[in-house]
Amino acid sequence: MAREIAEQPLVWTSLLSRRDEIGRLAQSVRAKGPRTIFFLARGSSANATSYARYVIETRTGIPCGSIAPSTMTVYDATLDLRDVLVIAVSQSGQSPDLVEPLARARSSGALTLAITNTPSSPLSEAAELTFDLAAGTEKAVAATKTYSAELLALFLFAEALAGRRGAEAEALPVAAERVLEDETIARIATRYRFAEQLVTTARGYELATACETALKLMETTYVVAQAFSAADLLHGPMAMLDRGFPVIAIVARGRGGRAMRPVLEKLAARGADRLVVGDPEAASLGTVSLPITEDVAEVVAPILTILPLQRLAFHLARERGVNPDAPRGLSKITETR
Amino acid sequence: MAREIAEQPLVWTSLLSRRDEIGRLAQSVRAKGPRTIFFLARGSSANATSYARYVIETRTGIPCGSIAPSTMTVYDATLDLRDVLVIAVSQSGQSPDLVEPLARARSSGALTLAITNTPSSPLSEAAELTFDLAAGTEKAVAATKTYSAELLALFLFAEALAGRRGAEAEALPVAAERVLEDETIARIATRYRFAEQLVTTARGYELATACETALKLMETTYVVAQAFSAADLLHGPMAMLDRGFPVIAIVARGRGGRAMRPVLEKLAARGADRLVVGDPEAASLGTVSLPITEDVAEVVAPILTILPLQRLAFHLARERGVNPDAPRGLSKITETR
Repeated sequence: MAREIAEQPLVWTSLLSRRDEIGRLAQSVRAKGPRTIFFLARGSSANATSYARYVIETRTGIPCGSIAPSTMTVYDATLDLRDVLVIAVSQSGQSPDLVEPLARARSSGALTLAITNTPSSPLSEAAELTFDLAAGTEKAVAATKTYSAELLALFLFAEALAGRRGAEAEALPVAAERVLEDETIARIATRYRFAEQLVTTARGYELATACETALKLMETTYVVAQAFSAADLLHGPMAMLDRGFPVIAIVARGRGGRAMRPVLEKLAARGADRLVVGDPEAASLGTVSLPITEDVAEVVAPILTILPLQRLAFHLARERGVNPDAPRGLSKITETR
Repeated sequence: MAREIAEQPLVWTSLLSRRDEIGRLAQSVRAKGPRTIFFLARGSSANATSYARYVIETRTGIPCGSIAPSTMTVYDATLDLRDVLVIAVSQSGQSPDLVEPLARARSSGALTLAITNTPSSPLSEAAELTFDLAAGTEKAVAATKTYSAELLALFLFAEALAGRRGAEAEALPVAAERVLEDETIARIATRYRFAEQLVTTARGYELATACETALKLMETTYVVAQAFSAADLLHGPMAMLDRGFPVIAIVARGRGGRAMRPVLEKLAARGADRLVVGDPEAASLGTVSLPITEDVAEVVAPILTILPLQRLAFHLARERGVNPDAPRGLSKITETR
């Protein structure tokens, strides 16, 4: 897991060099003029699509949603998916509960695109269009490099759909090297040695980071970690956050981060323990903070922000005596139907 | 809260008597021929729309998704929402983070429908079409009768869209009276007196019940409760469920319930503590069970299944010395933007 975390800047550099290929892919999609985009994904890949949705909607105005696979696999429904693009995202491309809905979506009229790290997978074979992340084999059960590769590929694809080149992403590999050198996170991980539960929260683009952080922590440290959009947190879950409850808030520089301020103030008033990750100017709103000083655009910040949080999961797993490469009860390919 | 829980059968009877009105509403929608339906909701109402999505997709084949309000309110994006129906669902109809996106959706070409319990609310005024749940004033902060009223109204609306009358729902009020008489749940609540964390899980129609149960428990008992679709549970979170970890599994009679069997077996193998709610034939798969013997169709089962789980939250709050009518840190109208 540590090695795969460290490989990310190289994986991104490779993806950035493939922008012409992504441009041609977007051209094929634009030729069909989809009116709506639905994602099909589970786990970390589903978190990546939560990011993609904000990017595509703000870049192109095409409304995005998510397929509920069980509509098709459990209830055998046939959807009218003409003028819909279905983007399936999966590291392995193997899970039957993605392959079957994708095949059905295609036969229901959808244009289908599979983004995987396994180009000869059943999911790729079921799709009309495919994109290979080419992130190299991922061995750790907890996805790291394939997650950030999915984010970047989806960002570049959204940009290409809007007729742009994703210039904001060019700064990422160098910024990532610097972020990965910062050892502050190992010290912060120690604080959570005995935490039994934890909440992560964010808004907008960074909501994906909150969800992915919670999932990484559940997978590798077994802490009960729950992600909420900052808005949903106020609708009920706020009640359970008592004095000292650990909250990790992802605060981007920009609009999404500014929308987090009132929530951070409310969390402070309730006495929650707050780790603020991201905008250095928001650091004072946290009990502890992990400022990310690299100056990247808000829209690509989630690709960078996840790095120290993957490392948080890794370090905390080790502190707690768990082997982060082999979480109990999980396997790399999840076989659900 | 107890009184509002008890009022539900009467609220449903009243809704069932308004099927002609719902039919006319569906007729107005069908005349516009929406290609896609997007929901706009938060909290309990968002859980109700998760149910509605399965019902509408299986009944009509129209694909459904959810609006991410911050696309519009934080990032100021303009979506192309022609041929889209946006259904906003809210008890109060007051939250600015629903009113503004609904108004923007309408000006972006969407047909808009507001379903609220407050017909003169800003949300209703922003929508082209409206439906008043008429469930009577809800005073408890934790929504109960408005939640089940939303489920039933959305079911009847989906049926009407498909040119049907929702006959499956006619058995609900009488079945509800019987379910509400069963005092087993008070005894079961005692088991969770010292639980610090809990997972709820289901698939398909009943996923809404798992989400709403977790939210009720967080709001009224402050237990850290997390809902997962049974498929998502296998993608990572399963690792954190160690021996004795409390899981509440909602198992419908029918396809969604059958899809739960392998997950229950995996949970049993991990030694998780399992409360199985629903299908009497699945009771043996639980450590404890709460069979619902009323024979209602799977598609309307979630409207009934939530009743004992609302009462679980109520009883557990009392056991833990919390006033379920006044959860800390919450107010009835959540003001997020």
